[in-house]
Amino acid sequence: MNQYIVKNFERPNPRIVNNFKRFDVSTVYEAQGKTGLMDYGLMPLTLGNQICGPAVTAVCHSGDNLMIHAAIEVCQPGDILVITTIGESVAGMIGELMVGAMMKQEVQGVIINAGIRDAEQIRQLGFPIWSKSIYSEGTSKIKGGWVNVPAICRGTNVCPGDLIMADDDGVVVVKKDDLTEVNQLAEKRLLDEETIRKRIANGELTLDIFNLRSTLNKENVVYFENEVQVLKR
Amino acid sequence: MNQYIVKNFERPNPRIVNNFKRFDVSTVYEAQGKTGLMDYGLMPLTLGNQICGPAVTAVCHSGDNLMIHAAIEVCQPGDILVITTIGESVAGMIGELMVGAMMKQEVQGVIINAGIRDAEQIRQLGFPIWSKSIYSEGTSKIKGGWVNVPAICRGTNVCPGDLIMADDDGVVVVKKDDLTEVNQLAEKRLLDEETIRKRIANGELTLDIFNLRSTLNKENVVYFENEVQVLKR
Amino acid sequence: MNQYIVKNFERPNPRIVNNFKRFDVSTVYEAQGKTGLMDYGLMPLTLGNQICGPAVTAVCHSGDNLMIHAAIEVCQPGDILVITTIGESVAGMIGELMVGAMMKQEVQGVIINAGIRDAEQIRQLGFPIWSKSIYSEGTSKIKGGWVNVPAICRGTNVCPGDLIMADDDGVVVVKKDDLTEVNQLAEKRLLDEETIRKRIANGELTLDIFNLRSTLNKENVVYFENEVQVLKR
Amino acid sequence: MNQYIVKNFERPNPRIVNNFKRFDVSTVYEAQGKTGLMDYGLMPLTLGNQICGPAVTAVCHSGDNLMIHAAIEVCQPGDILVITTIGESVAGMIGELMVGAMMKQEVQGVIINAGIRDAEQIRQLGFPIWSKSIYSEGTSKIKGGWVNVPAICRGTNVCPGDLIMADDDGVVVVKKDDLTEVNQLAEKRLLDEETIRKRIANGELTLDIFNLRSTLNKENVVYFENEVQVLKR
Amino acid sequence: MNQYIVKNFERPNPRIVNNFKRFDVSTVYEAQGKTGLMDYGLMPLTLGNQICGPAVTAVCHSGDNLMIHAAIEVCQPGDILVITTIGESVAGMIGELMVGAMMKQEVQGVIINAGIRDAEQIRQLGFPIWSKSIYSEGTSKIKGGWVNVPAICRGTNVCPGDLIMADDDGVVVVKKDDLTEVNQLAEKRLLDEETIRKRIANGELTLDIFNLRSTLNKENVVYFENEVQVLKR
Amino acid sequence: MNQYIVKNFERPNPRIVNNFKRFDVSTVYEAQGKTGLMDYGLMPLTLGNQICGPAVTAVCHSGDNLMIHAAIEVCQPGDILVITTIGESVAGMIGELMVGAMMKQEVQGVIINAGIRDAEQIRQLGFPIWSKSIYSEGTSKIKGGWVNVPAICRGTNVCPGDLIMADDDGVVVVKKDDLTEVNQLAEKRLLDEETIRKRIANGELTLDIFNLRSTLNKENVVYFENEVQVLKR
Repeated sequence: MNQYIVKNFERPNPRIVNNFKRFDVSTVYEAQGKTGLMDYGLMPLTLGNQICGPAVTAVCHSGDNLMIHAAIEVCQPGDILVITTIGESVAGMIGELMVGAMMKQEVQGVIINAGIRDAEQIRQLGFPIWSKSIYSEGTSKIKGGWVNVPAICRGTNVCPGDLIMADDDGVVVVKKDDLTEVNQLAEKRLLDEETIRKRIANGELTLDIFNLRSTLNKENVVYFENEVQVLKR
Repeated sequence: MNQYIVKNFERPNPRIVNNFKRFDVSTVYEAQGKTGLMDYGLMPLTLGNQICGPAVTAVCHSGDNLMIHAAIEVCQPGDILVITTIGESVAGMIGELMVGAMMKQEVQGVIINAGIRDAEQIRQLGFPIWSKSIYSEGTSKIKGGWVNVPAICRGTNVCPGDLIMADDDGVVVVKKDDLTEVNQLAEKRLLDEETIRKRIANGELTLDIFNLRSTLNKENVVYFENEVQVLKR
Repeated sequence: MNQYIVKNFERPNPRIVNNFKRFDVSTVYEAQGKTGLMDYGLMPLTLGNQICGPAVTAVCHSGDNLMIHAAIEVCQPGDILVITTIGESVAGMIGELMVGAMMKQEVQGVIINAGIRDAEQIRQLGFPIWSKSIYSEGTSKIKGGWVNVPAICRGTNVCPGDLIMADDDGVVVVKKDDLTEVNQLAEKRLLDEETIRKRIANGELTLDIFNLRSTLNKENVVYFENEVQVLKR
Repeated sequence: MNQYIVKNFERPNPRIVNNFKRFDVSTVYEAQGKTGLMDYGLMPLTLGNQICGPAVTAVCHSGDNLMIHAAIEVCQPGDILVITTIGESVAGMIGELMVGAMMKQEVQGVIINAGIRDAEQIRQLGFPIWSKSIYSEGTSKIKGGWVNVPAICRGTNVCPGDLIMADDDGVVVVKKDDLTEVNQLAEKRLLDEETIRKRIANGELTLDIFNLRSTLNKENVVYFENEVQVLKR
Repeated sequence: MNQYIVKNFERPNPRIVNNFKRFDVSTVYEAQGKTGLMDYGLMPLTLGNQICGPAVTAVCHSGDNLMIHAAIEVCQPGDILVITTIGESVAGMIGELMVGAMMKQEVQGVIINAGIRDAEQIRQLGFPIWSKSIYSEGTSKIKGGWVNVPAICRGTNVCPGDLIMADDDGVVVVKKDDLTEVNQLAEKRLLDEETIRKRIANGELTLDIFNLRSTLNKENVVYFENEVQVLKR
Repeated sequence: MNQYIVKNFERPNPRIVNNFKRFDVSTVYEAQGKTGLMDYGLMPLTLGNQICGPAVTAVCHSGDNLMIHAAIEVCQPGDILVITTIGESVAGMIGELMVGAMMKQEVQGVIINAGIRDAEQIRQLGFPIWSKSIYSEGTSKIKGGWVNVPAICRGTNVCPGDLIMADDDGVVVVKKDDLTEVNQLAEKRLLDEETIRKRIANGELTLDIFNLRSTLNKENVVYFENEVQVLKR
């Protein structure tokens, strides 16, 4: 229950992180067996962004951003700051000045299970954030917490150095130890999807591509030519 | 309680469908006596879109998209796929590949009382969707359901062949049998609105245009020149 | 309990209103001691807008917009119409025609704790609105209420002539009598922020700029070089 | 789109209605293939109640209870009044006086997708209600609507004369034409459940009773004697 | 913007407060023209309670209960403590010990737009509370605020000395200056309701008691003897 | 990502578990530094219950209860079954029959971040459950998952053998390794609270017991004798 900050941890191989940038959140989530997805409710500040990098974690008390300041110091270029709180709040825990400080450290982006503010200014700075809310309500800077502790963010476990990927579909976490395996599985999914895309372009139906007619049959779904037939039954 | 798919149904006259494209959701909803509007909570994937066409309905079990695959096969160019589920979910039931399949069938757009995923890719494809959520959570393809059954989507009854119209204000359904009547009423509203727009442009107040001063009077709303008078009462 | 409309009230000095336009909602809210912020849940129709001007208030019964029509008449150029309801609703109380009437009166913008409709048309007119919802559900024009009464909008007291400022972060109210004091405090914040911005640009950490290392110390937050050390404790 | 009241309709055979009283909502919902269940969100005024009888439907405008008054007149002893609204509201549409009027007509209970008030007085009268909210906010009595029209209540279709059953688990609708079939299926479920109950009492595990070990196997779920084994993998 | 505590204020005449105890929340809310009702969402800790007395107000920062401690000191027997927060929270701001302190001061009950904890112990003490949530999350005791300031609690203005009434239907505020008038109007409502109750008991329909048949007529609601007629139209 | 069931794990010393039964959730949560509390939103089926025992964890796919059946087999007398799902749902994953099977295994109670059904029958059996919802919607028994894996339930980490305590205020988790320390801290809190209770009973104010007058002073909270003074400032 003691509060602490861990300065260094092992980050994943940059080459594999880079390779993940070819995927998207849905692909990665599916590739690792429909796991690792943060709960619904984090929204991107700007549509159409994607971020992908190692997690630095910060656990704050709700309504207090002291530990975010502490976390910035230990971030390295390309890191993604994952911020959770003890207790719920929509308060804006990050504003334009702190984003400036993060950009100075070359933080890649932020995932925060709370609010942000100065939304328009941050959009103009081009810094990617996924948050629960956008709201002026402010915070104090007085309560201790943790940096680079294993954390829980919207129902998902995040350890420092885990890979974070976020896009318009949500946020997914890949455990450090699973990166190689998930990378391969996601590659395979990309190839499979490319094949499916081509078959669709050629006019095939997904009913046939996925062999779903037999499922319909097994589920006793019957076909009628028209509505009259249904009524006549 | 048997599950089925109806392949064919009578679609409304394309000429009348085309004429409806001149209206918008609020106008049509008002024209048919403030009825037919789906419950609040469906959001357009892209702002500023409008779709208008005959409904193909699909009723799935929540978390399973088998029947959407089945529905695509029976869609015709210009159709709008209306998807509801038994049970609630925010899972992404449609992604980029399925949208590709729909576009191949020239489906005009989708109304889905559940989630979608691959949001950014679908935006780039330019395919219009109204959904409850955008989220990577995936679905299975194993549970039977219905296609082209009378369905209930966010509190509103939709039969195959009913006219669906959606824009930023929501989604409205016009029953097949009411199309001619609602068309006339909506035309009349357009004309009335044009007249009001002109009167406003000429400097008239809506209080006068709608004869609301008498209503204020009947409701015993009194005028004071300034705040001091109110306090003095 | 009598219903009334106040035609005239004292508006704040235009020069001070103009000066406020240099600030934003978060700055003003902080400057007046973290007060005056409307509760979370009002969203701008268009991102990136800011409005700032004196409040005209309208209190309607939910689902009825009679008093908005009455309020338009007493608005003067630059006013911001703040609309609240007795009872909750997501119905669209304002549409394109009413916005036309407001623009004719040179109303600067609207804050409404209810819904609007004709969203796309209003966006094209360029008229700024903060609302709880966008939805076609309509209203009647039959129930009396109040114009320019002290009102409560999303948990915040608004009197006619109070300054309203809204941007992507929310909506804040400055009481007429506090304008000079808040103006000075906000100016000071701007200057302070500019200093901080420069120090950040020069590579200083916010931990140092805000003297937070002593707070971390007081809160018994300890530093570890790496994860192994934590486990070893 | 015309508004009307239907005075008479065919009610189901009282003998079969009586027989249904032996079941509960979950049993009936399962018996008819997991269909007919109203959406989550209706709560019983008093825990532990069950009602079961033919539906009289009323469709009101939200915030107006005129059509409930009209519906009371056409109710017969044992009927269940199902009330929906066009538009959402938490207002209390029914109070103690109206409940008195319903009890005089021997209405069995009410399902209302809106609010009620005088909660404590109604509890003391012992009248069963399932509602969305309990709240003093009042209603007008001025807007026309429908009585005994096919209605949609929390996502479920209800026609006059359909069987309504409600208990602490929710509210289910059985279509008039399905009563005999669902009755038989529910009877069978009762018998099956009784058998299962006995087998459980005898110490059998549900894993065995439902043959789920093979499913675990098929899903590749493996057993470990203890946690150490998992870590060792 | 200065923070303060007002020790004394004028409380309403105890005789008129006592007389109000004969009414309930819905009656009082209607008697004062459907105003003064707090927004939906405050729930009684124990069903079937009613409280009625003068308000002492406390405005805290969310997650901090310092000002509740301060407020207890200035409470007098029979007072009702109305607690609001700046910022939203579900944290339990009051527990069994503080309730003990309130009971020692003979506080009659609490209205709190936040959470409480020790729910079961407080129920056993028999102390009435209306709160937004029941939750163990705790608070600090470090942030200044206000006691006996005009406050806004769930959208309703409360001044010290205003009459608060709460029951299962919600919470209503009667302004000090309106007590005599609302008392008379509520008395009249009680008498009217008693008359209506008798007429209902004698078998009259509310359609006739409230003269609603003419409203149905004006709204063009037509009667059909049976469903067949509707279909035949 | 492999799915598995762990049959055995180390349970905490029964003597220390028994000792915890003297505490309540709020006390334990405070004693361990305001940590370990599950997020707001789990409600007890019956008010006034308390449970306290070692966790058996089950992770299901939402809408499927296969792994609950598997978990029952490995439960021992006094265990508390903690059930979470991948994906959100309000479906009733546990009914009366499964509760019968749990009671046969002498399971002490259930914490489930999803729904239950057969609420009234389970209440009559006297089995304690904390759930997110009560709803008839049913589940399948076909999808693999985990039993006795480290799990996340409403934002809190739960490992098999951790101590679970639940009452009307919520659900708290004490990590196996912290039991002795938290036990001592909670004992101390009990003693402290008893002292405070007595001081309150003797007429002391909490302002004095907690030395809060200096905090008020430090926060610049000033006292006024009456409202007139405030206005005069």
